[in-house]
Amino acid sequence: MDESPAIQDDDFGTQRLEAFSDGVFAIAITLLIIEIKVPHLAAGEGESLTRALLGLWTSYFAYALSFLSIGIYWANHHAIFKLYRKTDHLFILLNVLFLMCISFLPFPTAVLADYIDDSGQRGTAVTFYTVGLLLPALSWMLMWLYASANYRLIDRRLEASFVRHLTMKFLASVVIYLAAVIVSFWSYALALVVCVGLTFSYLLPTKKSEYVSTEGN
Amino acid sequence: MDESPAIQDDDFGTQRLEAFSDGVFAIAITLLIIEIKVPHLAAGEGESLTRALLGLWTSYFAYALSFLSIGIYWANHHAIFKLYRKTDHLFILLNVLFLMCISFLPFPTAVLADYIDDSGQRGTAVTFYTVGLLLPALSWMLMWLYASANYRLIDRRLEASFVRHLTMKFLASVVIYLAAVIVSFWSYALALVVCVGLTFSYLLPTKKSEYVSTEGN
Amino acid sequence: MDESPAIQDDDFGTQRLEAFSDGVFAIAITLLIIEIKVPHLAAGEGESLTRALLGLWTSYFAYALSFLSIGIYWANHHAIFKLYRKTDHLFILLNVLFLMCISFLPFPTAVLADYIDDSGQRGTAVTFYTVGLLLPALSWMLMWLYASANYRLIDRRLEASFVRHLTMKFLASVVIYLAAVIVSFWSYALALVVCVGLTFSYLLPTKKSEYVSTEGN
Amino acid sequence: MDESPAIQDDDFGTQRLEAFSDGVFAIAITLLIIEIKVPHLAAGEGESLTRALLGLWTSYFAYALSFLSIGIYWANHHAIFKLYRKTDHLFILLNVLFLMCISFLPFPTAVLADYIDDSGQRGTAVTFYTVGLLLPALSWMLMWLYASANYRLIDRRLEASFVRHLTMKFLASVVIYLAAVIVSFWSYALALVVCVGLTFSYLLPTKKSEYVSTEGN
Repeated sequence: MDESPAIQDDDFGTQRLEAFSDGVFAIAITLLIIEIKVPHLAAGEGESLTRALLGLWTSYFAYALSFLSIGIYWANHHAIFKLYRKTDHLFILLNVLFLMCISFLPFPTAVLADYIDDSGQRGTAVTFYTVGLLLPALSWMLMWLYASANYRLIDRRLEASFVRHLTMKFLASVVIYLAAVIVSFWSYALALVVCVGLTFSYLLPTKKSEYVSTEGN
Repeated sequence: MDESPAIQDDDFGTQRLEAFSDGVFAIAITLLIIEIKVPHLAAGEGESLTRALLGLWTSYFAYALSFLSIGIYWANHHAIFKLYRKTDHLFILLNVLFLMCISFLPFPTAVLADYIDDSGQRGTAVTFYTVGLLLPALSWMLMWLYASANYRLIDRRLEASFVRHLTMKFLASVVIYLAAVIVSFWSYALALVVCVGLTFSYLLPTKKSEYVSTEGN
Repeated sequence: MDESPAIQDDDFGTQRLEAFSDGVFAIAITLLIIEIKVPHLAAGEGESLTRALLGLWTSYFAYALSFLSIGIYWANHHAIFKLYRKTDHLFILLNVLFLMCISFLPFPTAVLADYIDDSGQRGTAVTFYTVGLLLPALSWMLMWLYASANYRLIDRRLEASFVRHLTMKFLASVVIYLAAVIVSFWSYALALVVCVGLTFSYLLPTKKSEYVSTEGN
Repeated sequence: MDESPAIQDDDFGTQRLEAFSDGVFAIAITLLIIEIKVPHLAAGEGESLTRALLGLWTSYFAYALSFLSIGIYWANHHAIFKLYRKTDHLFILLNVLFLMCISFLPFPTAVLADYIDDSGQRGTAVTFYTVGLLLPALSWMLMWLYASANYRLIDRRLEASFVRHLTMKFLASVVIYLAAVIVSFWSYALALVVCVGLTFSYLLPTKKSEYVSTEGN
């Protein structure tokens, strides 16, 4: 890993930070499944297991949405870390804060899955889930703002317009998730549509423009 | 990891994708055990713990079958990724979709273990489990078709006949799991035999032909 | 990994030890969330899910505190391992002992979260949690004392004053956590304040002095 | 990872196999803690949480013993893999089988912790746990016998006497665990003593002789 320790000694390097983050991503994404519990039925009631398994569609939906969200953060984490040339103490702490928010996501996911078909509680569940999505977006933006301000940690060859482009994009995510939180007080369905829509927008191939750091070479 | 960042900047590289996938494989495969719950007995009833532990044979069987299935996907993932020379945005998404199916497997495994000795529900449980095995096979094939079409991402030195051989093999797995799903509506036992048989066929040393990519060197 | 196996054969190397430790850190830190259980309410009781989720503030607090504690150990583990040039059998065992204490932390965290708002039991819960924080600090110090005594495993170019500085720092952590354990018998609140304060002290940027190993180059 | 893919194409290489195994080791060892459940008490019963937490000593004992056992296998896995120069299909399968046994260990550990203080069931629990320790020892020996026979996969420079020494050592572990299984039918305490004794024997620094592969250089 550390092939030139002398060079790496004065900063933390990004490799082990990436490897540790990847580990947390991989575990958080895989832990989502253990929140889906096997339905317990009384024996011999015919087709009821079929109905019970189909009735877990809310869990499958929440599983898929959170899996995609974490998967997208992982891909973005990788893309963005290519832009970094070093790290420092505060940046590592911000990254730990971000991972704390990512690791928290299985809990609001389970809350959403359990209460989305409960008409009395689903508003609260969706608000909680959208807050759960807002937190990583917020800490992600903090991490970026800290690293990109005055090219503190990022590659100096990046074009200023590209840096601004990313800042705007991350800010937009925060604003949209914040809007989803507010909207959830009036319409749980609209709030979910906003979250799903934002997630799917990240799946668009146009995201590939994130890799244009080669402009600066 | 990134020893030549200039080269890697325009594509994602396969190393971190493999490392992340390995993490998810390792976690999904290890999480299988936490679906087996310690039997709770009233104290002082003689031999009943022995009977209770032996009675969990369905859980041990499901654990072993799913462990082998994920282990085989991991080995295949490694073998196939040697054939890739680059990745792109859509491929990464397809890989995330594949991992989502792999991570889901502990859940149908637990359903199978819980209901296979319930004569009223075992048909449903086996259908659900075979669907759980079909999903990774399907997403795996999607990933391969996307990567291999017109040598989009795979090594151009691979022989066309070998690429076709792999396409046929992966298609055969999908067809066989699909057949197991359909068969499960009539005979749960036959469907399980098909799944076990397919898994064991992957254990055969003839699989070593996957490494013939050196033909193209 | 092992690019020069001939050189690495006579000692264990630090890379795989670091990689394995990182894995345990990443898993222990991510497992913290599964100790927070979704509240189960009777359907249709209006605002009660909101109250239930807010009522879990003890779990969120314990989650954040333990997450930060493990995250800080991870960062320190990385920083300290840069000072090591080799490992030996006993050091590996001490590292396993340290990881055993880190992996144990989710349990006292869950005990703290469950009982901190129970006036009859909270003293015990806080004592147990502070012991849970003391154990990694103790094993961490053991590992350091073994490695640094007579420069057994650490880089010989490190200045003696810097080695003493680290020894004092780690010893101070042990003493403070031990004080927190003792204080917890009289005041659970003061003991928690000590733990939170020590954790936050580790977040201070002055910790960057740990990287002064370059003094010895 | 694959810096010379042309060389690695015809065999699987050991790096990714080691990395995947390390992942499974790290997860299995960390999952042990989630089998220890927070005791649930009625509120306001004075010292009972203290008693409840102390009453979990069987869980702490089982946690520590299994943690050490997995940790020792991890260290041995690393030491032994330095002796390997290549892998093949069957070896990978044997390694998957070995990992299946390692991943299984949290379950018999939980059974032991739950039933060791139940005088009617503890015999069964100890038998089950010793079988749980025997299985990885058995599959480990299979892996070694396959790899070392006629120097199939191991470094040809290893001295034959050293290879025999390792074969004898691994065989001895199997025999001792098998003896513990048999003894457990008469005396659960003696069987546990054998397991603890064998584990502690692995902690002895004399194990360092495993690294004498440099004899062959």
